[in-house]
Amino acid sequence: MKRIGFLLKVRPDRVEEYKARHKAVWPEMQAALRRTGWHNYSLYLREDGLLFGYFETPISFNAAREGMAKEPINAEWQASMAPFFEALGDLRPDEGMFELEEVFHLD
Amino acid sequence: MKRIGFLLKVRPDRVEEYKARHKAVWPEMQAALRRTGWHNYSLYLREDGLLFGYFETPISFNAAREGMAKEPINAEWQASMAPFFEALGDLRPDEGMFELEEVFHLD
Repeated sequence: MKRIGFLLKVRPDRVEEYKARHKAVWPEMQAALRRTGWHNYSLYLREDGLLFGYFETPISFNAAREGMAKEPINAEWQASMAPFFEALGDLRPDEGMFELEEVFHLD
Repeated sequence: MKRIGFLLKVRPDRVEEYKARHKAVWPEMQAALRRTGWHNYSLYLREDGLLFGYFETPISFNAAREGMAKEPINAEWQASMAPFFEALGDLRPDEGMFELEEVFHLD
């Protein structure tokens, strides 16, 4: 398993709504994530909107993203989430995830 | 198991040395972490020094920190790491960890 860390930036004025939406992620979206290799996936949010994601995958960050990019439900979810994020330009939120370097691990 | 996310800020001019030190964390420090409930522990670093930590614990963030605070090796490690971090004042690095809210989880 690879352990992936990434960052995104939620708009500060949308933080509460972002949290509410993530208490009710569509079951089809959850199934697609599992099917495409997103496991033990958590999102952490700072009050100003800094968002950190962590997940484990048997493939790679890019392969997991590419798998989700082929899921029709993902296009719907990302379109519904796009207004919540800062500075993505024409990117979908899942295209704007910034991968971080793992510099330490202890099992 | 609780899943904990936290932030710290490494000084940008010390990022490379921080990474090098974390390729060789003292075995006694690793043993103390395991003994006090720090499991599946990873650190992620952005080039500007933003540091994100993730670990799993059967207790809580504060209980895991308090457990480490009682380990003599931790005082040595934190003293050796203190010059790497920004804006900690009189705090040890482990006292300056800012816990983040988990807003989503998928097993």
